[in-house]
Amino acid sequence: MPTDICFSFEGFSARGGKTDEHSDGWGIAFFEGKGCRIFLDAKPSIDSPLAELVRRYPIHSTHVIAHIRKATQGEVTLENCHPFRRELWGRYWVFAHNGNLPDFQVESKGIFQPVGDTDSEQAFCLMLNTLRENFPQGQPPLEELYQVLRKITAKIASIGVFNYLLSDGEHFFTHCSTKLCYIIRQAPFAAAHLIDEDMTVDFSELTTKRDRVAIIATTPLTDNEVWIPIQPGELLVFQDGLPLTFK
Amino acid sequence: MPTDICFSFEGFSARGGKTDEHSDGWGIAFFEGKGCRIFLDAKPSIDSPLAELVRRYPIHSTHVIAHIRKATQGEVTLENCHPFRRELWGRYWVFAHNGNLPDFQVESKGIFQPVGDTDSEQAFCLMLNTLRENFPQGQPPLEELYQVLRKITAKIASIGVFNYLLSDGEHFFTHCSTKLCYIIRQAPFAAAHLIDEDMTVDFSELTTKRDRVAIIATTPLTDNEVWIPIQPGELLVFQDGLPLTFK
Repeated sequence: MPTDICFSFEGFSARGGKTDEHSDGWGIAFFEGKGCRIFLDAKPSIDSPLAELVRRYPIHSTHVIAHIRKATQGEVTLENCHPFRRELWGRYWVFAHNGNLPDFQVESKGIFQPVGDTDSEQAFCLMLNTLRENFPQGQPPLEELYQVLRKITAKIASIGVFNYLLSDGEHFFTHCSTKLCYIIRQAPFAAAHLIDEDMTVDFSELTTKRDRVAIIATTPLTDNEVWIPIQPGELLVFQDGLPLTFK
Repeated sequence: MPTDICFSFEGFSARGGKTDEHSDGWGIAFFEGKGCRIFLDAKPSIDSPLAELVRRYPIHSTHVIAHIRKATQGEVTLENCHPFRRELWGRYWVFAHNGNLPDFQVESKGIFQPVGDTDSEQAFCLMLNTLRENFPQGQPPLEELYQVLRKITAKIASIGVFNYLLSDGEHFFTHCSTKLCYIIRQAPFAAAHLIDEDMTVDFSELTTKRDRVAIIATTPLTDNEVWIPIQPGELLVFQDGLPLTFK
């Protein structure tokens, strides 16, 4: 079910210069049906009028990817802000990366080419080029896609730290290289308290029995819920708020 | 020189349900260097919190494309809002269309495929596929690109009404099928008064001698300046605020 992310974003955006040092820009992508909108800003998220709008304006979405940047490679410019987006097979694909891939050089012969100069966008383009080359006719069944994605992910992850979130608006592909965790919120709902701000929301008052949401983050956003760590090297797929695994 | 578009957007956005009937969503793309951000909303621009933000928050940009939609083909959904964006040759390309292309059917064999179901996005994908097929190695010199673009534009325009704006963040390609006009504002600057709102701005107070800006619109935004009509069938290229023509 589409939901807004105002609560999570309140705590998350504080990490863009207030409770954490990730202040070299930020971005957030919302899927609404097949459509997708992305808000980007090269300013710290705590100072950004756009972030203020996102905090206050409840955009209902099925799949959201947010990122706050600490620049390791590439200037602090708009084109280097995550999440990145491309269209493949008539769907938008959105990608955000936490980590660093030193000396990552890709031959830019594929269709998808980076616009900015981050290792992250290079990796994203390589992943999409690999998917397209393996499935030129269109989007394959999920498990086939997963196997190709796992192989190219392992190859890139051998170069450096490669925690990522990738979505086509229907699935979330989440790879843990060093740190990534998740929780599933579903009935019976309870209250949750943010780590980065002193704020509590009682989800039992705001939800229905049909609601279910998975939240995936590099480090937990709340301090009174049990977050499940994803294992290093693990590539999970979330669909309809639940993780799937393939061998 | 990068400039904000608050004045023009004030009048333009009134056409999304107040002074005109284009109330089936709106969008605006800002290029900042090679980066690009797009704000989209399936709501009328006069009711949209996002439009309110764009009206108030002076984003400085070299190339801006704004669109308000009156749906002719495709549902009123986010994926059908203009402007559309794709990456080609490592640059973002942004496109907005005014018009209607009845019975426009493209074989979807190219790399770029529409996400939504508008004739406009189909036409955009066909244009980019044609450019890529003609220049697979990368972006060609401007005049070569222009000739290919003109040919595919004429082909599409033979089907229906095809007024458009296309930008790679360095050039504006503007095609007039039925209506499109422009003005160049440069020193000596004067006051301009909007048609859609009773608002005047004296640009001589806000500009320097080095500033120059081209504004292109389907119908004039101001009533005390001389707007130059683009001729039906004409494809102009604007660079650094001036129109170029090729034979």
